[in-house]
Amino acid sequence: MFDDPLRTIAIENVEPQIGCGAFPIKREVGDTVVVEADIFKDGHDLLCAVLLYRKVGDTTWSETPMTLFDNDRWRGSFVVSDLGRYQYAIEAWRDEYGSWVQDLVKKHDAGEDVESDLLEGERIVARTRDRATGPVQTDLERWLAGWAALGDQHRRVVAAAEPSTVAMMRSVPDRSRATRSEVVLDVVVDPVWARFGAWYEMFPRSQGTVPGRSATFRDCERRIPEIRDMGFDILYLPPIHPIGITHRKGRNNNPICSPGDPGCPYAIGSPAGGHDAIDPDLGTIEDFDRFVNVCAVHGMRVALDFAVQCSPDHPYVREHPEWFFKRPDGTIKYAENPPKKYQDIYPLDFLCDAYESLWLEMKRVVEFWISHGVRIFRVDNPHTKPLPFWKWLIAEIKRSHPDVIFFAEAFTRPKMMKALAKAGFCQSYTYFTWRNTKPEITEYLTELTQTEMREYYRPNFFTNTPDILPFFLQTGGRPAFRIRAVLAATLSPSYGIYNGFELCENRALPGREEYADSEKYEYKVWDWDRPGHIKDLLRTLNRTRNAHPALQRLDNLVFHRADHDDILVYSKATSDRRDALVVVVNLNPHDTRESLVHVNPWHLGLGDDEPFVVYDVLSGNRWTWRGWTNYVRLDPLVEPAHLLVVERG
Amino acid sequence: MFDDPLRTIAIENVEPQIGCGAFPIKREVGDTVVVEADIFKDGHDLLCAVLLYRKVGDTTWSETPMTLFDNDRWRGSFVVSDLGRYQYAIEAWRDEYGSWVQDLVKKHDAGEDVESDLLEGERIVARTRDRATGPVQTDLERWLAGWAALGDQHRRVVAAAEPSTVAMMRSVPDRSRATRSEVVLDVVVDPVWARFGAWYEMFPRSQGTVPGRSATFRDCERRIPEIRDMGFDILYLPPIHPIGITHRKGRNNNPICSPGDPGCPYAIGSPAGGHDAIDPDLGTIEDFDRFVNVCAVHGMRVALDFAVQCSPDHPYVREHPEWFFKRPDGTIKYAENPPKKYQDIYPLDFLCDAYESLWLEMKRVVEFWISHGVRIFRVDNPHTKPLPFWKWLIAEIKRSHPDVIFFAEAFTRPKMMKALAKAGFCQSYTYFTWRNTKPEITEYLTELTQTEMREYYRPNFFTNTPDILPFFLQTGGRPAFRIRAVLAATLSPSYGIYNGFELCENRALPGREEYADSEKYEYKVWDWDRPGHIKDLLRTLNRTRNAHPALQRLDNLVFHRADHDDILVYSKATSDRRDALVVVVNLNPHDTRESLVHVNPWHLGLGDDEPFVVYDVLSGNRWTWRGWTNYVRLDPLVEPAHLLVVERG
Repeated sequence: MFDDPLRTIAIENVEPQIGCGAFPIKREVGDTVVVEADIFKDGHDLLCAVLLYRKVGDTTWSETPMTLFDNDRWRGSFVVSDLGRYQYAIEAWRDEYGSWVQDLVKKHDAGEDVESDLLEGERIVARTRDRATGPVQTDLERWLAGWAALGDQHRRVVAAAEPSTVAMMRSVPDRSRATRSEVVLDVVVDPVWARFGAWYEMFPRSQGTVPGRSATFRDCERRIPEIRDMGFDILYLPPIHPIGITHRKGRNNNPICSPGDPGCPYAIGSPAGGHDAIDPDLGTIEDFDRFVNVCAVHGMRVALDFAVQCSPDHPYVREHPEWFFKRPDGTIKYAENPPKKYQDIYPLDFLCDAYESLWLEMKRVVEFWISHGVRIFRVDNPHTKPLPFWKWLIAEIKRSHPDVIFFAEAFTRPKMMKALAKAGFCQSYTYFTWRNTKPEITEYLTELTQTEMREYYRPNFFTNTPDILPFFLQTGGRPAFRIRAVLAATLSPSYGIYNGFELCENRALPGREEYADSEKYEYKVWDWDRPGHIKDLLRTLNRTRNAHPALQRLDNLVFHRADHDDILVYSKATSDRRDALVVVVNLNPHDTRESLVHVNPWHLGLGDDEPFVVYDVLSGNRWTWRGWTNYVRLDPLVEPAHLLVVERG
Repeated sequence: MFDDPLRTIAIENVEPQIGCGAFPIKREVGDTVVVEADIFKDGHDLLCAVLLYRKVGDTTWSETPMTLFDNDRWRGSFVVSDLGRYQYAIEAWRDEYGSWVQDLVKKHDAGEDVESDLLEGERIVARTRDRATGPVQTDLERWLAGWAALGDQHRRVVAAAEPSTVAMMRSVPDRSRATRSEVVLDVVVDPVWARFGAWYEMFPRSQGTVPGRSATFRDCERRIPEIRDMGFDILYLPPIHPIGITHRKGRNNNPICSPGDPGCPYAIGSPAGGHDAIDPDLGTIEDFDRFVNVCAVHGMRVALDFAVQCSPDHPYVREHPEWFFKRPDGTIKYAENPPKKYQDIYPLDFLCDAYESLWLEMKRVVEFWISHGVRIFRVDNPHTKPLPFWKWLIAEIKRSHPDVIFFAEAFTRPKMMKALAKAGFCQSYTYFTWRNTKPEITEYLTELTQTEMREYYRPNFFTNTPDILPFFLQTGGRPAFRIRAVLAATLSPSYGIYNGFELCENRALPGREEYADSEKYEYKVWDWDRPGHIKDLLRTLNRTRNAHPALQRLDNLVFHRADHDDILVYSKATSDRRDALVVVVNLNPHDTRESLVHVNPWHLGLGDDEPFVVYDVLSGNRWTWRGWTNYVRLDPLVEPAHLLVVERG
C-alpha cells in the first residue's frame, strides 16, 4: 500500500549524469570521478552519505565518504584505476549518534538535565556494540564501561561528544534504513590516449617517391621516424582495403576514370577482398603487421578507417545481397544524397531483415583488425547508420577490448554529433575546423569545456582532412597554418593534421573546401621537406604538449580578456597549479597586432601583483610579467603566437 | 542479443520534465501544456512526431502533431481540460512517403530519370492503401489509378509532390517502426484557484467584540461580508480543534499559563477531542458547517490548518501511544528543537512500527474535513515529517478529490522547500516575506518564474503570518504595509495577508519577528476600522487582480530597468497582449523617489515609439507614456506605487 515509506532521504540532482543515466560518462585510467548530489531529509538530523562505486561485474561496492559542502550539496570522489566500465551510486542514512550528540550538547549547554538523554545515548552505543565485530566491538564495550564509571553528567556529555567517540560510532553505522539513490550511473574508462594524443593522417599510397605508382607499407615504414620526430603518436590511415573497379572515380572525382587511376579508397572491395583484406598495391597482411610493429617500436599507434560501405565489386555483394538496399527491379542501389550520386559505392541497410548477420559481420571485421594490432578505429560517416548499431557494436567490442577506441567522423547537426558520443564513440570530430574568430572559438570551447559535453564528448581538433581544406588555410598563407596548428595543439589534448598540412599545402578546387588534385583519387608524390614547411613548429608544439601535463587535459581551459579583437588569450594549468601555460594567439594571419592582455593570475597559482617569468617556447624569449595586465605584440609573419610557460621564483 | 535495434530515433531532452520524470509538473484546468524535445535520427530522412497524452486511467492515448521549429527541436501542445492527473509521451517515425518525395523532386529537378523511383513510390502508396480503411482507402485506390494514367514522368512527379497527396499519405503512417520516448511524464491538474487566489488568514477566536472571551464561528460569520468586500477569496483558519491543557502556554508564549488563558491552537487535542473535533469555545461541527456554507454563499472558500501534532491531552496519546516518540523510561517525548522545548506538544513518529495505522488515520482526518466542505489544507511544518508520507497522502487524497489542494508551510532550506512541492504540495510559502530590495526581489522572482521551479512550485506570497512580522513592516510604518501589499498582490497570482495586516499592526517583541501580545496565546478584540487601515488599497488590488487576467498568472512576469535603485518596475501581460499592466513601486517606505523607468513596450504589445495611455488604478490618474523611457515620482506617504493598466488607441 505504501510506496517505500522508509525512503526518507532525498538524493537528487546527482552529477555527473547524462540523459537521466541513459548514457555513461567518460574518464581515462587514473582519473578522479567527482560526484555531487543534493542530499537531505525532513527535520534537523545529521546525515551520513557515501559514494558507492564498483567495476561492472563486481558484486560488491566499494565506498568512500561524501562531505556536505554547501546548502545540502554533498561531494565525494573515487579514482578509476582500471580500463572498462564502472558504476556509481549514493547511499545516505541518518547519523543517529551524531544527531543525538548534537542535541545533547545543546541541551546540556542550556543547563538542562540530560539524564534521560544520556540513557538514550547509552542504548545507542550498546546497539552499536552489538552490531560491531572484532576490535571495534571490544573498544565500544570498554567505552561503555568507562562511560558509566564517569558518573558526573558533564563528564559524560564531554566524553560522548569527543570527536574520537563520534568517529568510532560512525564507523559502525546502522544502515538498515539507508536510502540508496534511484539511479546507478555508469563510467566508461578509456586509455589515457583516448584523451591525449597527436594524430597524423597519412595516405599510404602517397608516401613513396615514384610518380604514378602506389607506395607500399614498406614505403610508409620509411616515413615513420620523421613523423615520430615531429612528435605525433597516432598514425591514422584512410581505408587500406582493395578498391572497386566498377564506376571507379577518376582524378578530381571525375565520374570517368582513366587507365591507371587508383580509385577512391572509400570504394571498398574488389575481387581481391573486402573489409578484412589489404589493397594488393599496398602489400600483404604480413606487410601490414610489420608496419604496425614498426610504428609500435617508435611509440606510435595505428588508427584504421572503418568505412562501412562497399564498392559494387565487394564480396558482400555476391555473398550477402540481402544486406543491401534494392530497387523495385531487384538491383542494388548505389549511394545517393540527391542530386549527388555515388555509383561506386553501395550503402548497407543496417535495418534489413538480415540485420543480425550484418551487425555480427561488422563486429567480426573490427575484431579481425584488433587481432592485427589495431586499437583505434576512425569511423567514417557514423551519422548515416542507426544509433542502436553503434551503441551495440562499441559496447560489444569494449567488453572484451576496453582499450579499443572509436572516433566518430561526423560533421553534421550538433545534436546528432552529441548523440554519437553518448552512444559510445570515444572521440569525435568537431566544428573547430571552421571556428576562426575570437567569439567563435571562445563560444565553441566554452560549450565543450563548461557544459555537460565535458563529461562524454572528447573533441579531436583536426586542422584539415582529405575532405576539408578550410578557406582560412586556403587564403591565410603560412601564418594561417601556424595559427591553426597552435590553436589545435593547445586548445585540445587530442588534435590532428592530415598530411600536407605540415607543408602548408593550400591548393583547392575553386570556391570549394576540396583539395585540388586530391590524393583521394590519384597517386601523389610529396616532397616532405619542401620550402615553407612548418615541421619545426609542430615538433615544438608536440614536445611542449608532452612535457606539460597542463596541455594534456581539456577541462582546465580558461579564457582571458585581451583588448584587441584579434588577440585570443587562454591558459591551462594542472589542478595543483605547478604546471601552467598561457597561450596568446594573433588570429589574423595578415596583420601585426598589439594588445594589452588581462590574464587572471589566480588561474596560474599566482597572487594579484606577483611578478613572474614567462618563457615562450616558440620564440625562446623570456619576459617578466606582473599582475593582471601585460603587453603583447604578434607579427604573424614572424611568430603568430606566444606559447608561454609560467616559471616561478 | 540486440538491444532494441529498431529504436533508431533519438527522443531526448523532453521538457518540461522534473527530476527525470520522478515528479509531475503542475497545471490548472484549461491550461496548455507545451512540450518540446530533440527528435532526430541517422541519415537525411524526414520524420513525423506526435505528442501523446491521456488522463491517468485511460487506456488509449490522444495525440497531436509536433512541429520541428529549430535545430532538431520539436514542439507540440495539449490542453488539460479536466482536474486530475494526465500523462504525456512522444512518438516519432520515419516519414516514408515525405522522404521519398523529397529525394524524388531533387533528382527530377536535376534532370535524372526517375522511373525506378516512381515505381518505388507506387509501392509505397499501394502499401499505404492496404493499411488504410474506409474513404481514405478508396481515395488512395483512385489516386493510384489516376496516377498510372498520367504517363509522363514530370506529371507523375508533380502529382506525387502535391501537398494534398503528401497530407493524405501522412494521414495513414506506417508506425510499425516508430520510436516511443523512454519516459512517460505526468501532469497534475489542479483547480484554477491553486494558482490564483487572495488569502485572508483569520484567528477565529479573535473575531468577536467581547474582550477576554473567545469569539465563535457565529462571530466569524459576521466578518465575512467585510472580508469579501476587500476582495479575498480564501479564508484560512489556524487550527480550530480543542486545545490541550497540560503545559498550556500563557500570553506571549509564557511557559506558565494563567487562569483563563486559551492556549495555543497548535497544541491540538483535549478531552473534547482531537484533529476531527471543533474547539468548544468556537462552537460545534454544525456551526462550522454553517460557517463554511456562509463563506460559500459569499464566494469564499475555507482553508484549514493541518498541523500534525498533539497536545499531551490528545485522544491519540491514550488510544495510540505507539505513534509517539518515547524516552528510555517509556514516557512520551515532547517536541524540542534544542535548546527550545515545546512541552505542550507531542510530535508523532511517522516511521514508528505502527506507521501504517498512523498514516491511514491522517488520511481519515483529511477526508473528514473534506466531507465538511474543506478543499484547502494549509499544512503546518511539513518539512519536519518524512517526504514519502506527503507524497503518499497527497496522491491518495487527490485520487478521489482532485480539487483538493495542499499548501506547504515550510520556511526552511531551499532544496527541502522545492522537494515538498515536488512531492505533491500544490502551493508553497516562500522567502518573499524577507525579500525587500530590488536585487533581492528580482533575483528571487527570476528563480520562481524562469527556472524549472515554474513547472512545479506555486508560490503564495504572504505578507505576514502569526509567526512572522517582518522587520520591514515593524519599521516602515503604513507605507511599508502598502508597499508589501502591492508587491504581494501583483507579483504573485496567489498571495495572502494575516489579519491585522490591513490595520498596519506592527508591534513586535523586541528584536524579534514575533508579534507583541500575539493572539496565538490570548483572546484579542480588534477594531477592524481603526484609523490608518489600508482596506481600501486591498480592495483596489483585489478588484484589479480579478479584472485583469494578466495578474492571474506567474510565468508572465517581466522586470524592466529603472535608474533608481529603490524603484522596481515590472509588467505582466496576457499572451495575446490584450491585457497588460505595468507596476512601479518605490521600495523605500521613507523617502520620495524620482526615476526614469525603461519599460520595453514589446512586452506590452506596443511598438517602439507608440504613445500609450496608462491608467493608475491606485491614484486614478492617467498619463500618456511613449516609447521606452518615462518618468515617475513616488512619495510613499502619498502613493508608494503605480499600478498602471495599459490603455490602447
